[in-house]
Formats: sequence, C-alpha cells, structure tokens
Amino acid sequence: MQADPFNRNCGSRKVLDRIGDRWSVLVVLTLADGDKRYGELAERVDGISQKMLTQTLRGLERDGLVTRTVHASVPPRVDYALTDLGRSLLDLVAGLEAWATTHLTEVEAARARYDARG
Amino acid sequence: MQADPFNRNCGSRKVLDRIGDRWSVLVVLTLADGDKRYGELAERVDGISQKMLTQTLRGLERDGLVTRTVHASVPPRVDYALTDLGRSLLDLVAGLEAWATTHLTEVEAARARYDARG
Repeated sequence: MQADPFNRNCGSRKVLDRIGDRWSVLVVLTLADGDKRYGELAERVDGISQKMLTQTLRGLERDGLVTRTVHASVPPRVDYALTDLGRSLLDLVAGLEAWATTHLTEVEAARARYDARG
Repeated sequence: MQADPFNRNCGSRKVLDRIGDRWSVLVVLTLADGDKRYGELAERVDGISQKMLTQTLRGLERDGLVTRTVHASVPPRVDYALTDLGRSLLDLVAGLEAWATTHLTEVEAARARYDARG
C-alpha cells in the first residue's frame, strides 16, 4: 500500500506528528552541529521540562532519528546524536524554524486583527 | 528582538506548533489546488472530526493562513482558501508530507527494533 497521510489508517500521520512537533524540531536542530549531552540539550531548548525532553528524546530514538550512547565513564556520560535518517530531516526542520521566525510578525498581526473582530 | 524559537518567551514557538500540526498540514495541502468548501475538506482529510476541522480552520484563519468567505446563496456557501501567507507554506508542508510517506517504512522498522529491545 502506498503511504498516504490523508488516509486515517496510514501510519504516516503519526510520522507527521513526530516531525512537526515543536520539541522534536528544536532538539533535531540542536543536534545538527554534533552530539550533545542531555544537559546541553536541556540548556539550549530553553524552558523544556525534564519530562518533556526525556519523552522527546525517547520518541526520536524509537523512530530511528536519534541515537543514545552511554559512555562507561565515572560518572557515566550519555550522548545523543542524529542518525542518517535524522539528518535527512535537517533541511525540513530548518525550513520550519526559518518560516516561523521570518513570518512571526505577520502571524501576530493577523491574530490581532482576527481577535479585534470580536 | 530577533525571533528565536529556542527562547521560551518567543512567539515563534506557537507558530511552529501551528505549521507543524498534522491537521494544519493536511488542510493546507488540500487547499493547494484551490478553494474548498467545509464538506470537501472534511471528506479529503479522512477521519478528522467536525470539532477538530472547525478548530483547525479557525486557527489557520486567525493566523492569517486561510480566508473564510461566506457566499450569500441559499443555502449559504462557505469557502476556504489559502492566503499569500498560507501559500508561502506550501513547499514546507509538501516536504513534511513527502518525508513522512517516503520514510514511513524506515520509521516503522526502527520502532519495531526499539520495542523488541524490551
């Protein structure tokens, strides 16, 4: 069967959820320039809760977009990195980020107009 | 201030939520080839609830991505169309759809491996 997110039973809808999710976008972008530790990700993605970061990383790992490597140091160090599949998302998520920042003013102006209509 | 979705206070995070949302993606793609009535959208985006479609269209309209036009016919006809701002999203949302459908098999295989690790 051809994948088709317009079909309610197609798993590609869940893939859309993953790749469009704001936290996934920000984590993938943070990993673009190389491996990061958990604490580095938490610092860069300002305001993300520990629960949400853990959940996002687990989802990205489960979907094959990110690897989690535990180094046998004392204390143990855990690194996260993009897989090739994760790397294939980079242009798209960078495009989403660029659109959101470029058009923020227009979107906020549209909202103000809509809300003023009452 | 420069828009920056890595900053917890920046409104661009909410814009990311809008443009990455699965229902917004599917509705915007459906409007790519021209105006659509509510019922046409409901039919094309298989399985979307009436509540969710109404909410998605209202969000897209509020954010300036879609216009809603009521025609003074009997019965009244309501058409939805992309604005120029909405049209500027087309490449991105088509890219998300293409990624999701192209890589569905890889993502599902990764999930099966992850879940088998127990």
